[in-house]
Amino acid sequence: MDTDLTPPGPLAPGGLRVTALGGIGEIGRNMTVFEHLGRLLVIDCGVLFPTHDEPGVDLILPDLRHIEDRLDDIEALVLTHAHEDHIGAIPFLLKLRPDIPVVGSKFTLALVAAKCREHRVKPVFVEVKEGQRSTHGVFECQYFAVNHSIPDALAIAVHTGAGTVLHTGDIKLDQLPLDGRPTDLPGMSRLGDAGVDLFLCDSTNAEHPGVGPSESEIGPTLHRLTRGADGRVIVACFASNVDRVQQIIDAAVALGRKVSFVGRSMVRNMGIARELGFLSVADDDVIDIGAAEMLPADRVVLVTTGTQGEPMAALSRMSRGEHRSITLTAGDLIILSSSLIPGNEEAVYGVIDALAKIGTRVVTNAQARVHVSGHAYAGELLFLYNGVRPRNVMPVHGTWRHLRANAKLAVSTGVPEENVVLAENGVSVDLVGGVASIAGAVPVGKMFVDGLITGDVGDATLGERLILSSGFVAVTVVLHRGTGKPAAPVHLHSRGFSEDPKALEPAGLKVEAELESLAAENVTDPVRIAQAVRRAVGKWVGETYRRQPMIVPTVLEV
Amino acid sequence: MDTDLTPPGPLAPGGLRVTALGGIGEIGRNMTVFEHLGRLLVIDCGVLFPTHDEPGVDLILPDLRHIEDRLDDIEALVLTHAHEDHIGAIPFLLKLRPDIPVVGSKFTLALVAAKCREHRVKPVFVEVKEGQRSTHGVFECQYFAVNHSIPDALAIAVHTGAGTVLHTGDIKLDQLPLDGRPTDLPGMSRLGDAGVDLFLCDSTNAEHPGVGPSESEIGPTLHRLTRGADGRVIVACFASNVDRVQQIIDAAVALGRKVSFVGRSMVRNMGIARELGFLSVADDDVIDIGAAEMLPADRVVLVTTGTQGEPMAALSRMSRGEHRSITLTAGDLIILSSSLIPGNEEAVYGVIDALAKIGTRVVTNAQARVHVSGHAYAGELLFLYNGVRPRNVMPVHGTWRHLRANAKLAVSTGVPEENVVLAENGVSVDLVGGVASIAGAVPVGKMFVDGLITGDVGDATLGERLILSSGFVAVTVVLHRGTGKPAAPVHLHSRGFSEDPKALEPAGLKVEAELESLAAENVTDPVRIAQAVRRAVGKWVGETYRRQPMIVPTVLEV
Repeated sequence: MDTDLTPPGPLAPGGLRVTALGGIGEIGRNMTVFEHLGRLLVIDCGVLFPTHDEPGVDLILPDLRHIEDRLDDIEALVLTHAHEDHIGAIPFLLKLRPDIPVVGSKFTLALVAAKCREHRVKPVFVEVKEGQRSTHGVFECQYFAVNHSIPDALAIAVHTGAGTVLHTGDIKLDQLPLDGRPTDLPGMSRLGDAGVDLFLCDSTNAEHPGVGPSESEIGPTLHRLTRGADGRVIVACFASNVDRVQQIIDAAVALGRKVSFVGRSMVRNMGIARELGFLSVADDDVIDIGAAEMLPADRVVLVTTGTQGEPMAALSRMSRGEHRSITLTAGDLIILSSSLIPGNEEAVYGVIDALAKIGTRVVTNAQARVHVSGHAYAGELLFLYNGVRPRNVMPVHGTWRHLRANAKLAVSTGVPEENVVLAENGVSVDLVGGVASIAGAVPVGKMFVDGLITGDVGDATLGERLILSSGFVAVTVVLHRGTGKPAAPVHLHSRGFSEDPKALEPAGLKVEAELESLAAENVTDPVRIAQAVRRAVGKWVGETYRRQPMIVPTVLEV
Repeated sequence: MDTDLTPPGPLAPGGLRVTALGGIGEIGRNMTVFEHLGRLLVIDCGVLFPTHDEPGVDLILPDLRHIEDRLDDIEALVLTHAHEDHIGAIPFLLKLRPDIPVVGSKFTLALVAAKCREHRVKPVFVEVKEGQRSTHGVFECQYFAVNHSIPDALAIAVHTGAGTVLHTGDIKLDQLPLDGRPTDLPGMSRLGDAGVDLFLCDSTNAEHPGVGPSESEIGPTLHRLTRGADGRVIVACFASNVDRVQQIIDAAVALGRKVSFVGRSMVRNMGIARELGFLSVADDDVIDIGAAEMLPADRVVLVTTGTQGEPMAALSRMSRGEHRSITLTAGDLIILSSSLIPGNEEAVYGVIDALAKIGTRVVTNAQARVHVSGHAYAGELLFLYNGVRPRNVMPVHGTWRHLRANAKLAVSTGVPEENVVLAENGVSVDLVGGVASIAGAVPVGKMFVDGLITGDVGDATLGERLILSSGFVAVTVVLHRGTGKPAAPVHLHSRGFSEDPKALEPAGLKVEAELESLAAENVTDPVRIAQAVRRAVGKWVGETYRRQPMIVPTVLEV
């Protein structure tokens, strides 16, 4: 569907247009643009992490090009929570226009501030909290407490003349959340009483039947595992999962162990969380890694980054014996209190195997309940639909299988099928007179960040990189201008092709023969000569090796 | 451990030496060499599939170099079953010595024959079956029926003057196997009565507690799903899982549907399975895909390859709308009756999302029990250990976490800890006087197959390919011989670096400046000039882009 859509026409007067520039049809780079009366409101601005088919790419941004000409129309950027896939692209947006008001909760803004400092960007912040409202031009926003795997998350209702939209952000309906701040289903139900015209709802776990386990189930397991450990306990978890870290600390302290944070983002985030009152721990109980290494192993719990096997993260370094201060031994217990993000399996299993080789005990969710998801399962989403009772639904945050599953849930609660809009990135959904419909679509590409410069690496470059993963063969030919006669021997070299130094020898003869026959035909055009050389070498390599390296001819004239 | 080991000394007279050339410390390319009285016996000869860190590699072979000088000592190659990770490297071994007797069960040899035909190799086969014995020089082999996810699997006891070794191959203890041929635990127990000196045991599922579900649980689920489908049913499964296909067929036939096989290996293997009596289906009930496409959708079940998201497999083609004869529609039900092999997640989820976008219903093991593993869980392995009661144990088939878990199980049944040998690839375990101990180790590398030529692609080539995944910048300089003065303008070009045509312009000036200063210093050595050019361009690219493409300088003289 949708791929045949043409760009949308003008928005009907008084209508509301919703366009995702990322986050629909994929998991990551969430960013949704709301347009009303010529003005824009943006919810979230996150990054997507590259797949193995996108080599050399650091990050992928939402397609900011579609708002580049309308930056001055943006009233505010409103944030649901501080995960990278919701805030990671903010510095790139603010480099385009630094004074866009950035609206979010206390913890969210603190993490955005830390991120922006690294990028030398200083945003204009507007702090809000659940129960409040804030007005940004023609948009009135209303905030609801949301439970997720990071503190201080919000759902956002956007009230406009065209109707009310509710956006869940990432959401879970944990009924026994560790911080005593469950998702405000009563508040959303009141909003539903007043009428929600369009409901943008998290699809991530829509395929999972039932109701997800509570974060509070993790604590007892961590306690039991820590109690049973004779040596050091090392728990890896996501660096923003403050409730998880709280439970690790509680277990450690109850069992007379000190806690130390390891890894740059863990140290930074837990510093922020303590300062803002989201993490509760006595000064005595947290020590730095140097002090921790002086204590007996059974008096220490380390909380570390590296759950996804990132090669430079603390846990990976430990597994390779390359960590500056921590040397693992067979008595250590390692707990991976985290999920495995698809695509990272090879890296994570590599780390686990290295840990097993050392002889440490490794516990993952496969052995004990040491992780729960932060996203609502199908059963929880049903509570949301029945509470909000939306007129129209637009599943967000997910690939097609998640979106379809979420759409089905909406329909099962009584939302008419024709009122459920499956809109990919770039698709504009117009809300006019209480009716939501697809108005058209603009193509939304991936904006790749590779190093400092953004925007110069695209599909063509990535295509070349993928071909280069079979190596290349370069052929340099120097000819006398005009005559086309060789001025130097044909020079062949390759990288990533073969370790046999003589691998290409016969190809040189092929090139020389080709040059001779071109000369006999009086061909002197360097472009034609280059093409012929490429063909000759490519054919020889294909027949001899059955490989397809990139063939790179260079023809120079002297 | 082990990595510091030196090559083993001579084997004690009358002793038995066991050396894995693949399959321990990894999942794949299983191959174990037994040495006794100067003669060799090999069990299995499989391939390993490359990871994303091994770009361009087709297959990885066991390190055959260690037996290249002793090919004539090999009495036989004995096979446990016909999975690729146990037979895939046979053609490469037989190219070194074509007349090695290849010993295996009927179904195993049939699949090996098909594989060897593709490689134009004609092996010398010795067919055996459970209950039989065969003698190969100083080795007497005895065969036991084994249940696994492919028909006709065997465990192999090797009787020698030094003692008896039992090798499980891949094994499961399904007590209600579909083919009525359970693993011969009574036979192995009798062998245990007589005494098993060394037990090589499958570690794949040693981490999974309890007893695995039976293959026979799948049938009813397939029946229920097929009965509930209004349109076409398409089941993807491994092309050698004959019992699975039998159950798909049984459900289809019971519900009045015809079956068609899709995908080259599925068609081939099911042809062999029917011919040899391992798959039972009436001629009427199997139709070719052309005939299937003429029937109403609800009269058809397709059995297809492509469970791992392989881009050229039938299911992937269907998901992209590129299959020659099958066009999917929203009414189709797709069942992935398979596991997800780590590393393939991105590809498989990509296919599932494409199927979801079309609107087909996709059922995986996450929604219903449509797959079971073919490997024994921990609880089943305990039955094996208590039946066999081995003196010494050597866990095989697994990475370190699997080997450690398997070792622990052995110890828990009473095998003394010092009698459990954790031996990686290349480690020689000597059995002398009933005692198994590590004698040393030879380094075992990976033999990469890339296209036609094997052995010329190694770690250096792969290292270059990984660097090339960030692209390259080539700089060609033509100088007058002797003077070092430029004979042509500096030529810069790149691939996989940037889509900006002017990206490298300033670098040209840097190179020219560098050449001038080299000329001023009277440097005329092309090697030194190339190094200087590489440094200058690398530094400029790093500072300007913060990227690290490969810099490839070429200096030619005319």
